[in-house]
Amino acid sequence: MENTAYIIDTLFALFAMTLIIFMVPGFAMLEAGLVRTKNVSTVLTTNVMIYAVASMAFLLVGYSIAFGDFGSDSMSKWATFLFQMAFVGKAINIMSGGVSERVKIMPLAIFTIIMGALIYPIVVNISWGSDFLADTFLDLNMYDLAGSTVIHSTGGWALLAAILIMGPRRGRYRNGKIRVIPASNIPLVVLGALLLWIGWFGFNGGSVGSISTKENADLVALTIMNTNTAGLAGAIFSAILVWVQYKKLDITMILNGALGGLVAVTAGPDLYNIYIPILIGAIGGALVVFAVPMFDKLKLDDPVGALSVHLVNGIWGTLAVGIFANNGTDITFWGQLKGVLVVAIFAFGASYTVIYLINKLIPFRANDDDQLEGLDFTECGLESYPEFVRN
Amino acid sequence: MENTAYIIDTLFALFAMTLIIFMVPGFAMLEAGLVRTKNVSTVLTTNVMIYAVASMAFLLVGYSIAFGDFGSDSMSKWATFLFQMAFVGKAINIMSGGVSERVKIMPLAIFTIIMGALIYPIVVNISWGSDFLADTFLDLNMYDLAGSTVIHSTGGWALLAAILIMGPRRGRYRNGKIRVIPASNIPLVVLGALLLWIGWFGFNGGSVGSISTKENADLVALTIMNTNTAGLAGAIFSAILVWVQYKKLDITMILNGALGGLVAVTAGPDLYNIYIPILIGAIGGALVVFAVPMFDKLKLDDPVGALSVHLVNGIWGTLAVGIFANNGTDITFWGQLKGVLVVAIFAFGASYTVIYLINKLIPFRANDDDQLEGLDFTECGLESYPEFVRN
Amino acid sequence: MENTAYIIDTLFALFAMTLIIFMVPGFAMLEAGLVRTKNVSTVLTTNVMIYAVASMAFLLVGYSIAFGDFGSDSMSKWATFLFQMAFVGKAINIMSGGVSERVKIMPLAIFTIIMGALIYPIVVNISWGSDFLADTFLDLNMYDLAGSTVIHSTGGWALLAAILIMGPRRGRYRNGKIRVIPASNIPLVVLGALLLWIGWFGFNGGSVGSISTKENADLVALTIMNTNTAGLAGAIFSAILVWVQYKKLDITMILNGALGGLVAVTAGPDLYNIYIPILIGAIGGALVVFAVPMFDKLKLDDPVGALSVHLVNGIWGTLAVGIFANNGTDITFWGQLKGVLVVAIFAFGASYTVIYLINKLIPFRANDDDQLEGLDFTECGLESYPEFVRN
Repeated sequence: MENTAYIIDTLFALFAMTLIIFMVPGFAMLEAGLVRTKNVSTVLTTNVMIYAVASMAFLLVGYSIAFGDFGSDSMSKWATFLFQMAFVGKAINIMSGGVSERVKIMPLAIFTIIMGALIYPIVVNISWGSDFLADTFLDLNMYDLAGSTVIHSTGGWALLAAILIMGPRRGRYRNGKIRVIPASNIPLVVLGALLLWIGWFGFNGGSVGSISTKENADLVALTIMNTNTAGLAGAIFSAILVWVQYKKLDITMILNGALGGLVAVTAGPDLYNIYIPILIGAIGGALVVFAVPMFDKLKLDDPVGALSVHLVNGIWGTLAVGIFANNGTDITFWGQLKGVLVVAIFAFGASYTVIYLINKLIPFRANDDDQLEGLDFTECGLESYPEFVRN
Repeated sequence: MENTAYIIDTLFALFAMTLIIFMVPGFAMLEAGLVRTKNVSTVLTTNVMIYAVASMAFLLVGYSIAFGDFGSDSMSKWATFLFQMAFVGKAINIMSGGVSERVKIMPLAIFTIIMGALIYPIVVNISWGSDFLADTFLDLNMYDLAGSTVIHSTGGWALLAAILIMGPRRGRYRNGKIRVIPASNIPLVVLGALLLWIGWFGFNGGSVGSISTKENADLVALTIMNTNTAGLAGAIFSAILVWVQYKKLDITMILNGALGGLVAVTAGPDLYNIYIPILIGAIGGALVVFAVPMFDKLKLDDPVGALSVHLVNGIWGTLAVGIFANNGTDITFWGQLKGVLVVAIFAFGASYTVIYLINKLIPFRANDDDQLEGLDFTECGLESYPEFVRN
Repeated sequence: MENTAYIIDTLFALFAMTLIIFMVPGFAMLEAGLVRTKNVSTVLTTNVMIYAVASMAFLLVGYSIAFGDFGSDSMSKWATFLFQMAFVGKAINIMSGGVSERVKIMPLAIFTIIMGALIYPIVVNISWGSDFLADTFLDLNMYDLAGSTVIHSTGGWALLAAILIMGPRRGRYRNGKIRVIPASNIPLVVLGALLLWIGWFGFNGGSVGSISTKENADLVALTIMNTNTAGLAGAIFSAILVWVQYKKLDITMILNGALGGLVAVTAGPDLYNIYIPILIGAIGGALVVFAVPMFDKLKLDDPVGALSVHLVNGIWGTLAVGIFANNGTDITFWGQLKGVLVVAIFAFGASYTVIYLINKLIPFRANDDDQLEGLDFTECGLESYPEFVRN
């Protein structure tokens, strides 16, 4: 019977891992759809690079920093590794997406190595791993099941650092006006967002860690149900807000609202009853609708809305655990807030420092001429749709 | 051992549910590829809206009407809910797809609430649930494993009601001629149809309800095998018919033939030997090839062929159970036919009434000017491919 | 307990099979993205045709030739069939992809029947089945877990035969120069390659055959981990080589490098420690970068790089088992080489003969006028993107 649990949990982890890997095409299609055609291949290459380089860095270095060694008793250690490896690129995807249409691939590859081998594994260590700060006043007892903070805020802070260093896209803010740059391919945006949504079932469901008891089977199913519900609520509530404001249903905003709801529920989908995620997701969707124009007013240029989706909702979701799930457990609002702040300081500080230093060596930002021509020409040497676009 | 069954069936239901959710991008990509570029984002927004609104309505109201309460003994009740929730949007997708390029999103959202909260749950109640008509002469003992009638005909009848009320697209039937309106993006059509195909494995396989005995494991695998075989036969036979008629291989017709075969086998994939689905699927594919021009002659304008795929084959598939699976069981042709008719009368009647009433309040049909300009402009306020299309 | 193993292995095989079926849209999107818009629907129709026809031929004839009869003790025989059926189209996809933009669908459909009913099943019989050559000097004791030779080289040899008989695309090699024909849709290329990558987890993981003991659970997880690692290494190493040569990151070459790594690890992902696949995948990626221009110099026109990805790396991967996994087992380099050669002679010989004979009956090659106009017009009677392309 012990072996049956081992076998079922291994199968479950492989299933969850596979769903998360669907987020690789998910992010790639979402971002490829949101940018202009002249930068599409660069964004796609960046996404493939991040998966390859971050996963390899995590295999060779990062996993040991996060968890000590390859080992787990309750399922195959290789399944445990695969599940954790599936996470690492996501934090970097969040960062790279938000500096699309101006970031060059080579310096980003160097950052990816450091993020995948060091920065992200340290965040994991103090949140989910052995916690090398456990005996200090920085000891985190934040509850964050699947990474509202560990993945989404961490990626969001890295993105904020990157935007501050790299500045906005050429011509985005000119003469005090914000130039609207439309998405080039809406079906890809929808496909990508829906693949991310499906991947989230593996992300959050798999984070329960085991399905091999009756209680855990219920917990996994509840987690996936609550995850999905928050996404539904995020989509519906952002749609209502967009409709009220503009009398149009901008699908890119609705999908970002759904993703915002999904990020927000990620810290505690196993802790809520089946109605709380409606509230958490609805607020998540609303935050996206309000945050997107706010970041533009601050001239923090983020072509895909990643700050709003991942940073704002990563914080909101982590705090929401402290608000809605603190009865009868050792979870407190202040413990959650402390976790948010400690990770914020470390992730922003480390990312800022590393990006700043790499930027001195190899500038991250494509110059204005290259941005005008499109990064696909200078970075990839090809056109993404050579037969479609008017010249 | 009891718990092992509970755990394995929960995992199996979550796996099946996930496959069905791939049908959300499946329908979205299929329909986005079949319509003209000026309506692509509207179709995509509609698909996302349906998933969000129908699932939420089912969570808050519909599930209780269909099944009484959240409860199941043999697997996690949350997994049971998720699996059933994954179905609800599909019936509405069938309806919305067939009125593409003229239907507005807001009235459709209202219909989606009523369909997800009431109409579809009532159909489920009398077919798969406690059956509130059990003691009346309307008692259904139709066999419909995964919804040839419950999902596909129901959606098809709602579509027929919608087409009758809304009429054809602007300029589709003019001076006694049928204007051919070509699909705008064939790769999306293929991607969408293949995602639907994969989703069908979860749809039909999961409908067996349990994989945790040797007999059920065989039944699940046989169900998926037969489902796939009917799709293969539908594709091959429709391709042969299209080739014989036109000497060209129209991939949109071949894929609709495959989907027709999949719909047709859905009522009884667990009941057939491995060769019967070849016949059922081939007839399903043939029905699509003949029904598509027939509906056009009737001026029932259906841009995606949903009447042919889902309504015609939903009926055919339900009757096929009565023809091919009636030996030694209590399944009869007349019982199947009665089920088809009862659901037809209820689903068509209820949908017609609801659509008619909503239509008085908020017209479903975009006016001719808006159709000419494209619904993406009026409904979504954006272009789907702003850099591709010639103006 | 015996039944628990039966149930879990059935569920596992269905999961693995489903992942492999994602390779159907995977190949379709990859190839649709790599060809010119005027041939996109033809390529898509070909992919759907191959899945339908090859699977049906395998169901009706091929499976019996490969394995004798429908029967397995350790899991549902229908799950065993589905898993094996998911493989058969892949070898033919490899062949059809490499003769894209000039091959006609009808003669290819005839070849697909013969390949799915006879040629591929015979290769399986001598490699994985009862081996009707077991008592002869041709007895193969090649180790090939998931088909570096059985699938990838077999498809590659069929492709080489097809290219030799059909010749290059119109105008591809003119006046001693190689005309570069750019891919029409890079996002589809990326989507397709990533779906193939995910499908590979099912391909290789499922080929372990059972997950229902602790040892097998470890072996399945290790197999998937090593598969993924080789893909990562193939992507990274091909990217480095491309960057060094051209100072550009051609994403189509990087993805083919990743696929090359995946093909190369496929013969023995269960046999290696977790670091060997880095070497095998890196060499796989490098082989692609060097082989693609080499085949062009030989005027073997292969629009998708299938010879480099599948044939070259199928051979390399099979030999790699003999190099890296031969200690303490009965695997030898010479046994692996013998397997490569026997399959080469049979697959190339049989494919060449069959293609040659069909070609006498119905020419495979579209004539130059049809190629100039685009095969979508003559084969499918439609345009893939009627509103996008400049005329």
